[in-house]
Amino acid sequence: MSTPLTNHQVRLAKRPEGTATRENWKFTTEPVGEPAEGGVLVKTLSLSLDPAMRGWLNDAKSYIPPVGIDEVMRAGGVGRVIASKNPQFAVGDTVYGTLGVQEYILIPEDQIKRNGLVKIDLRVGTITQWLNVLGMPGMTGYFGLMDVGMPKPGETVVVSGAAGAVGQTVGQLARIKGCRVVGIAGGQAKCDWVVRELGFDACIDYKAGAAAVREGLKTHCPKGVDIYFDNVGGEILDMVLARLARKARIIICGAISQYNNANSMPSAGPKNYLSLLVNRARMEGIVVFDYADRYHIAIAEMAGYLKDGRMKSKEDIVKGLDTFPESLNKLFAGENFGKLVLQVAED
Amino acid sequence: MSTPLTNHQVRLAKRPEGTATRENWKFTTEPVGEPAEGGVLVKTLSLSLDPAMRGWLNDAKSYIPPVGIDEVMRAGGVGRVIASKNPQFAVGDTVYGTLGVQEYILIPEDQIKRNGLVKIDLRVGTITQWLNVLGMPGMTGYFGLMDVGMPKPGETVVVSGAAGAVGQTVGQLARIKGCRVVGIAGGQAKCDWVVRELGFDACIDYKAGAAAVREGLKTHCPKGVDIYFDNVGGEILDMVLARLARKARIIICGAISQYNNANSMPSAGPKNYLSLLVNRARMEGIVVFDYADRYHIAIAEMAGYLKDGRMKSKEDIVKGLDTFPESLNKLFAGENFGKLVLQVAED
Repeated sequence: MSTPLTNHQVRLAKRPEGTATRENWKFTTEPVGEPAEGGVLVKTLSLSLDPAMRGWLNDAKSYIPPVGIDEVMRAGGVGRVIASKNPQFAVGDTVYGTLGVQEYILIPEDQIKRNGLVKIDLRVGTITQWLNVLGMPGMTGYFGLMDVGMPKPGETVVVSGAAGAVGQTVGQLARIKGCRVVGIAGGQAKCDWVVRELGFDACIDYKAGAAAVREGLKTHCPKGVDIYFDNVGGEILDMVLARLARKARIIICGAISQYNNANSMPSAGPKNYLSLLVNRARMEGIVVFDYADRYHIAIAEMAGYLKDGRMKSKEDIVKGLDTFPESLNKLFAGENFGKLVLQVAED
Repeated sequence: MSTPLTNHQVRLAKRPEGTATRENWKFTTEPVGEPAEGGVLVKTLSLSLDPAMRGWLNDAKSYIPPVGIDEVMRAGGVGRVIASKNPQFAVGDTVYGTLGVQEYILIPEDQIKRNGLVKIDLRVGTITQWLNVLGMPGMTGYFGLMDVGMPKPGETVVVSGAAGAVGQTVGQLARIKGCRVVGIAGGQAKCDWVVRELGFDACIDYKAGAAAVREGLKTHCPKGVDIYFDNVGGEILDMVLARLARKARIIICGAISQYNNANSMPSAGPKNYLSLLVNRARMEGIVVFDYADRYHIAIAEMAGYLKDGRMKSKEDIVKGLDTFPESLNKLFAGENFGKLVLQVAED
């Protein structure tokens, strides 16, 4: 590299209370170095923007440590190896890893594993598919549905955030497994899309109001809900709890409706939780990282569905590192349509 | 029977909102008939008073239909067969069944199974033990802990309502299975008793206030809570959620703190339920009737523990059918010390 490269980065400036705004972030630049023996230099192509990111900004005990003040914001992404002193990675390799919200990342040998850096094959899926159905959201949907939900053919599966990254995977996979699938999404356009394009049996527009959701669940789940894959929490969780079938399973994957609360806590718990008792039902949390040693199995299966057309992968691509603060917030406003991806550089 | 017998009964007069008082009940008398072919006549000896009874008074969908207005109040109990035209039951047999809050019950042949009438052996346990460790509370504790909790030696088990019928079974059984057991009970006397007499490792007095419970959980569960057997719901459930260990199991058995709410709904759900996600934990409801075909296995095991002294069974015996309204409310005031039993007649 003759001209030294400059790395543009987004760092956490101060912890948000409620919604993170531009003032919670700072934009920094620094020169890009050369990899030492065993290290690699990766150029970021696209980053995954996920609801979970909001949780990483809170100074609270969770399944992963919070992002530190002044640290580059954590983000998973796909990049290209542009310099390597590691025999496992060659210049030109496409990789997935925790690249961070920055244009380049220099990863020393001893951090490659912790970074989760792995080579990916663009013949199996596109860059954005590797951030969606074949990436963390896909893995979350796959293991949450299969391992915790344990779907049986003919069962009724409800999934909230149905047009989002995890939701679209869950719904399509449940269809493939022979279940009846009812989505919950925000707005008629998303609802129409998950039914027409993804083959959901029905979709309920939560923006039509609580009464409509209640009515929709009654209409579309006449025998009750066998599996609820919850990405949103709040009032919708309570409404589904009221419609559980005997021995139902609820997968607690997230609670996007609550993430921007000032105290970073749900404003209320599910009042109807005693429906678990009445219906001998189960509510269980899932964290995708626990399944890392089986990602390859899920990826192989999902890649097959992508190839034979039984599964679609929709991404909502926003561009430019500079837009990160506002782009992230699209998730909490429900403005993304499909998996939200931040394209940092063209391939 | 030369002189016709008179049956004193307690019937539901009107559904309570909040706490049931004497005006929700009515006391009736009627003559006792003779069993028809295949039927039996049972004299009530002792009845089980249980928190779940409050739920049966609400006109709401639950795991069992509500008690109807003017119906004899539902109750499980131990009685003596005093007339029989059924070859399965002889005069003098001691039986367990859904006898109801009344002195006598005439059970036609076609209702014997539905009533759950079974012979019991007083050499295996006393009448009150058959309503406690060997009865519904014992079965609830056994299957909740073993089937849903799946205790492993060395794990930390927390049980609320620790001095109650279900709680004492759960705690002692968990000790026998090699767990560390922390009770939560109301008042120092109960706490001392579960530690000294039942061998719990520790017990937290919830009447000492929320801060004391929080502190107690921290002190006594330094590695977090692996299993929480919840009989009480409310704030205590939330406090335990905040201390879960990885892969914890919460058994939702009841929520006595909430049963007397006017709308028969919990006033609030567990705000900390996202701890299930962070800790990949599970919360699951249990209804004892689902395990009916395995009661005999649990009874045999528990009878062995009673015999060898590893398990104790404490009952709080109140007397007289007339005291039913006030006696039942002792449960919700936490005034009972051990399994609450209403003795209707001396044996």
